[in-house]
Amino acid sequence: MQGNFTYHNPTRLHFGEDAMNHLAGELKNFGSVVMLSYGGGSIKRNGIYDAVVAALKKAGKTIVEDAGVMPNPTIEKVLEGARLVRENHVDLILAVGGGSTIDYAKAVSASAYCENDPWETYWVNQGNPTCKTVPVGTVLTMVGTGSEMNGGSVITNRKEGFKRGKVFGTELFPKFTILNPRFTMTVPQYQMVAGFFDIMSHLMEQYFAGTADCTTDYINEGLMRSLIHASRIAAKNPQDYEARANIMWTATWALNTLLKCGKGGDWEVHQIGHAIGLVTDATHGMTLASVSLPYYRHVMHDGLHQFKRFAENVWGVRPEGKTDEQVALEGLVCLEAWMKEIGVVMHSGELGVTEENLQQVVDAVLILPVGYRTLTRDEVVKILIESM
Amino acid sequence: MQGNFTYHNPTRLHFGEDAMNHLAGELKNFGSVVMLSYGGGSIKRNGIYDAVVAALKKAGKTIVEDAGVMPNPTIEKVLEGARLVRENHVDLILAVGGGSTIDYAKAVSASAYCENDPWETYWVNQGNPTCKTVPVGTVLTMVGTGSEMNGGSVITNRKEGFKRGKVFGTELFPKFTILNPRFTMTVPQYQMVAGFFDIMSHLMEQYFAGTADCTTDYINEGLMRSLIHASRIAAKNPQDYEARANIMWTATWALNTLLKCGKGGDWEVHQIGHAIGLVTDATHGMTLASVSLPYYRHVMHDGLHQFKRFAENVWGVRPEGKTDEQVALEGLVCLEAWMKEIGVVMHSGELGVTEENLQQVVDAVLILPVGYRTLTRDEVVKILIESM
Repeated sequence: MQGNFTYHNPTRLHFGEDAMNHLAGELKNFGSVVMLSYGGGSIKRNGIYDAVVAALKKAGKTIVEDAGVMPNPTIEKVLEGARLVRENHVDLILAVGGGSTIDYAKAVSASAYCENDPWETYWVNQGNPTCKTVPVGTVLTMVGTGSEMNGGSVITNRKEGFKRGKVFGTELFPKFTILNPRFTMTVPQYQMVAGFFDIMSHLMEQYFAGTADCTTDYINEGLMRSLIHASRIAAKNPQDYEARANIMWTATWALNTLLKCGKGGDWEVHQIGHAIGLVTDATHGMTLASVSLPYYRHVMHDGLHQFKRFAENVWGVRPEGKTDEQVALEGLVCLEAWMKEIGVVMHSGELGVTEENLQQVVDAVLILPVGYRTLTRDEVVKILIESM
Repeated sequence: MQGNFTYHNPTRLHFGEDAMNHLAGELKNFGSVVMLSYGGGSIKRNGIYDAVVAALKKAGKTIVEDAGVMPNPTIEKVLEGARLVRENHVDLILAVGGGSTIDYAKAVSASAYCENDPWETYWVNQGNPTCKTVPVGTVLTMVGTGSEMNGGSVITNRKEGFKRGKVFGTELFPKFTILNPRFTMTVPQYQMVAGFFDIMSHLMEQYFAGTADCTTDYINEGLMRSLIHASRIAAKNPQDYEARANIMWTATWALNTLLKCGKGGDWEVHQIGHAIGLVTDATHGMTLASVSLPYYRHVMHDGLHQFKRFAENVWGVRPEGKTDEQVALEGLVCLEAWMKEIGVVMHSGELGVTEENLQQVVDAVLILPVGYRTLTRDEVVKILIESM
C-alpha cells in the first residue's frame, strides 16, 4: 500500500429481498419534501414505483415527481431538476433507478444552490461544492456503475460535445442505498450484460495501474473472480438470485473508493467509452466493451507484470514454460472469451461508430495522463479503428 | 450473497507515513478535553507519544492522562477509565496503541455514563448503550485486531473467570483512525507475528461458515492471499514498509463487518483462545494459533467444500486426481507450514496450559452454536488436549 490516502465511506447499505423495509427508517432522517427521480416507465411496470410511493406516503412525505431521467443524463435535465429542488424546497432526492438516475441526483444535489454555472464549476473545472447540497438516497434497480456508494456523476453536455465525469466528495455520496437483487431482475438482457461489463471495467481500470505489491490488487482480484463466476451463471439464467445478488454486491464494492486505496488507476477506457456514448448514445457498458480489448492489447507491454498477474490470478493461466508476454496474452484471450460468453458488444461499429463520425468521437476523448501509458491522439484513433 | 443485512461503516481511515498530519483536522471535530489512553512506555520510547501530545497541545486540547491499559484489559481498568471520563468531562477518548487499548477505549466510552453495571449490561447480556457515549479516535501502533474500524471490545473479568467480547454498533466505532505503518515497526517480533495470525484467524472465522457461493468469500480469499504473501516477507524483514503497510490495511478490512455480509461466521477458535488468555495471560494471536489446527482438523468434514475451496483458492492446491478430503487436508498442511514459517506458537502448552489448569480453561470457553459444527464440551477438551 503505497502513498498516503484517506478512506471514508459513510453510505448505509441495506441489502437483501427485504431491504425496502429499511426505507421507512431512513426517511425519518430527512425533512418532509422528497423529490422522486427516475427514468421511464419500467419501475411503474415492475411494482417498485408503487412500493416506493407507498413508503413515502406512509412516512407522510410530500412527493415531487421528477421523471424522465435519460440513460445519459444531460446538463439541461440536471438544471431542470435543480430548479424543481429550489422551487419545492426539497429535503431529500430519492433516486430510483440505475447509475444514470443516481449520477443525475448527485448532480442536481450539487447544482440546486450553486451560485455559478454548474457544468463549468463541476464537470469542466472539477471544482467542489461550496454551496448547500441536498441529501441523496437511492433505490437501485440496475447494477453496474457503483454510483449508489460513491461520489461519481457523469453528465452529458451535447452543445459542448462532452460526456464528463465528476467525482464529488463524501458529502454527496448517497446517505443510504436500498439493494434488493430482485429489483434488478426485470432489466433486459442487453442492459444487464452491459452492466456486468461496466463492473469488470471498473475493476480493470483500478487494477491496471502501479507496480507495487498491493493488498488492493488482491481484493480487486477477488471481486473479478466473483463477477466472472456469477456473470457466467446470470447471463444464462438471469433469474438465479444468488448470482444476481453476488453481482449486485460486487458492483457496489467495485467503485466505492476502496479499490483506489494505494493505487493510481487508469480510466482511459472509460474516457473513450464516454466519447462513443456521446456520439452514438450507446449503452455505457457496451461502449466500454467495444474498446477494451484493443486498448489493453495496446498498453499491455507497458504494464506487462500486471497483465501477467491478471492472467494467473484472475483467469488461472498456468505460467510454467511460457514467457511473461505469452501469459499476459493468454489472459486477454480469457477476457475476450468471457466477454463473448456473456454477450457484450465486441465492436464499436455495432454501436454506431462510423468513418463519418469517427473524428467526432476522437475529438471527444479526454486523454488522461495515468495508467501504464498516456495515449497520443493518434493512438486513440488507432484503437478506435481497431475497435470498429 | 444470502439473507438480509445492513453495512454501515463511517470510520475515517487516514493511511500512510503522513497520516498523523490528519490528526489536527480531526481534533477540530471534538471538544477540548481529550483523554489519552495508552498502554506502557513503548510509545514514549518511539516518539509516537510525543507526536500525539504535540498535536493535542497545538490544537489547544486539555489532556487527561490514562496510561496503563494492559494487554488483556480488565473491567476494573475500564471502570477507572469511566470515572476519569466523568470527572474530567472528557469529549474524546484518543486511544494510542493496539487492539487492547482501542477495545478498552470503546468499553470506557459505553461505560462512563451507563446507569447499570457495564460488565453485566454489555459483556454478559450483550445489551447496547442507551446512555450517552463518548467519541473514540485512534492512532494504531500494533496491527491485528481490526479494532480501529469496528465495534469490538473484548474485556476480561478475572473475578468471574471470563474474557468476553461485545460488538458495539456504529456509534461506538472509532470516528477516525490514524494508520501509519511505520508506527508498527517497533513492535517486538513475537507480538508482530501474533498479530499476523490474529488477522488470519479473523479471516478464517468469517470464511469457514455457510455453503452458498458468496462474493464475500472471494474478497476474504484476496485478503488471505495478501496476508500470506506479505507476512512471509515481514516475518523475515520487519522493516519492509510495503509488506507492513499491506498487512496493516488487510488487518483493518479483515474485521470491519464487510466480511460478515452474507455470511454467518464461526468464532469458536476465538472463544477457546479467549479462555486460554484468561488463564495464562498469553498474547491473543498466539492463543488462537495454538488451537487453530486441532479445531479445523476437527470440524473439517462438516464443512468439507469450504476447506477444499480454501486449499485451492488460498493455497493453490491442485485438485486433479485427489479426493475432496485430500485437497482439504493439503490446505491445512499449507496453513500449518505458513504458521511455522512466520513463527507462531503451535502448542498451547507453550503458553501455559497445563493438566492442572486445563479444566479452568475448558470451563471458560464460551461454546457458540455457529459454524459448521457446534462443539460439545467434551470436544472442547479433546481439542485443547490435542493443542497442548
